[in-house]
Amino acid sequence: MPLADDARWMAAAAALAERARPLASPNPGVGAIIVKDGVVFGRGWTMAGGRPHAEAVALDHAGSAATGATLYVTLEPCAHKSQRGPACADLVSEAGLARVVIGMDDPDPRTAGSGTARLQDAGAEVTLLHWEPHRLGLSGHAAHLAKSRPHVTLKLAMSLDGCIATSSGESQWITGEASRAHGHRERARADAILVGGGTLRADAPRLDVRLAGLEGRSPCRVALTSGEVPEGWQAIRSPQEITALDGVRYLMVEGGAQTASAFLAAKLVDRLLIYRAPVLLGGGTPAIGNIGHDTLEAAFADGLAMQDRRTLGSDTLEVYQRG
Amino acid sequence: MPLADDARWMAAAAALAERARPLASPNPGVGAIIVKDGVVFGRGWTMAGGRPHAEAVALDHAGSAATGATLYVTLEPCAHKSQRGPACADLVSEAGLARVVIGMDDPDPRTAGSGTARLQDAGAEVTLLHWEPHRLGLSGHAAHLAKSRPHVTLKLAMSLDGCIATSSGESQWITGEASRAHGHRERARADAILVGGGTLRADAPRLDVRLAGLEGRSPCRVALTSGEVPEGWQAIRSPQEITALDGVRYLMVEGGAQTASAFLAAKLVDRLLIYRAPVLLGGGTPAIGNIGHDTLEAAFADGLAMQDRRTLGSDTLEVYQRG
Repeated sequence: MPLADDARWMAAAAALAERARPLASPNPGVGAIIVKDGVVFGRGWTMAGGRPHAEAVALDHAGSAATGATLYVTLEPCAHKSQRGPACADLVSEAGLARVVIGMDDPDPRTAGSGTARLQDAGAEVTLLHWEPHRLGLSGHAAHLAKSRPHVTLKLAMSLDGCIATSSGESQWITGEASRAHGHRERARADAILVGGGTLRADAPRLDVRLAGLEGRSPCRVALTSGEVPEGWQAIRSPQEITALDGVRYLMVEGGAQTASAFLAAKLVDRLLIYRAPVLLGGGTPAIGNIGHDTLEAAFADGLAMQDRRTLGSDTLEVYQRG
Repeated sequence: MPLADDARWMAAAAALAERARPLASPNPGVGAIIVKDGVVFGRGWTMAGGRPHAEAVALDHAGSAATGATLYVTLEPCAHKSQRGPACADLVSEAGLARVVIGMDDPDPRTAGSGTARLQDAGAEVTLLHWEPHRLGLSGHAAHLAKSRPHVTLKLAMSLDGCIATSSGESQWITGEASRAHGHRERARADAILVGGGTLRADAPRLDVRLAGLEGRSPCRVALTSGEVPEGWQAIRSPQEITALDGVRYLMVEGGAQTASAFLAAKLVDRLLIYRAPVLLGGGTPAIGNIGHDTLEAAFADGLAMQDRRTLGSDTLEVYQRG
């Protein structure tokens, strides 16, 4: 029986969960808030390396105020003890919470449903909201467990007419400074960044995070190529080989056009970032090539839905989620 | 000395001016509001066929309340008498308004400054806001007098990656019903619609307004072609020949890609409507071809600035104004 406020508190917990990414990786970045009579007594998110868990941080924060309160947690509390700490379902049960509201059940077989059962056995009222993973910042966790692959974000920067270079090949910079800074922030939240072999050879991109204070967050670098890669890079020969990227939950694909098209054609793009500059290039290099969408029906079957749109300087960022 | 409220009242007058279009054409569609102590006593817009003028309607509406009030009018009141009515500058002077706020001065040589002078001679305080014509709904009037050509809107409907058809040529319908209805509303506000010869032969478009109650507003039809056109159509052989379209103040260019490119390359697009569907086509037909933008510098020199953005069903409409 979800209450009117549940969505608001769960969104707040999801916002906290963002702080866990990517430091908690490959563990899921979870957010938790403890509320009583509309007042927040504790909050937490998964710490670097994956422990302590969000619930443990929030309970520690709330202390005895947790008794009789409501816990909002983005993911079902874990039911498995580990050498690194007790099961959260036990911790939460002992704290005497009156109610636990969960964003989504954990597909991890070690928890899947048993976390919830243990809370109910301890007398807590449990509400499962069944939110989609992307609304909870758990897309990477869900993709890992359901598809044994990372969650993939494709970044495209283009003109109004879908070009990434002029007819003479000029491409730097189509989008402005604010878009590029936003792109670096997205990099800082990825576990790995991927470019194609052509981009690697032509641009020798650094693919690091050039934002003050976040330089240490530069993700690992991957190339889609059958050729050689520089030291510190990994190579995969097809988009399907992303399953082999160990410990990578969030992969950002940055181009070029051929690589973008390969991932789109393989239906391996979960989220699309389009940074668009207010300019028409006309007859330039298209942002993507053939992706197997011969008919409009096939194209619309991707089910892209706009999730966010914002103005970045003179540019526009649109974020699409695949249905 | 513009006051804080002036912008608000002028925007309201500009909204009224919208009602004049296209019925007042080829006369400029003007809006007028008479305000005293924050209360509106009269409002008007240019009537069908161009008379009465907006000021005359608003003054008639206000009656004796106009004395000592402020008139907001989008365009400088006319200074020339005609067989169809007295000069608005005289009418306004006689009504004893304390203040007249004007959106832009009229480039028409019969008025240019003399309307304002006559108001000042009659003792009114005159404030000229110098707004840009597009903010006042006077783009067509300004283009006609400054460039001896209609104001041109280019409409493009495309996918996220800038395509207007799939790789197999399928193009109906990329955008949804709400976008198409909005496109018909834009048609209803144009004096003429233009398509290329290819589109004319391939689609035999009706180019009429298919919105209930607005069927009578279907604009005249023009083709960019060196070939024959059906009865009721006009033909021009180059974008530059739009100067010969008699009485047309607002021209809407609807495509196809070659026609859109010809107008863009000729720098004859003042306003750009992009209806974008949430779909990637990949390797389809580009919305525009080469428009002479070999360098990014040349492309950005167009100075496109976003004027409006709205959601239409699943689609997005972006409106750009050329700088």
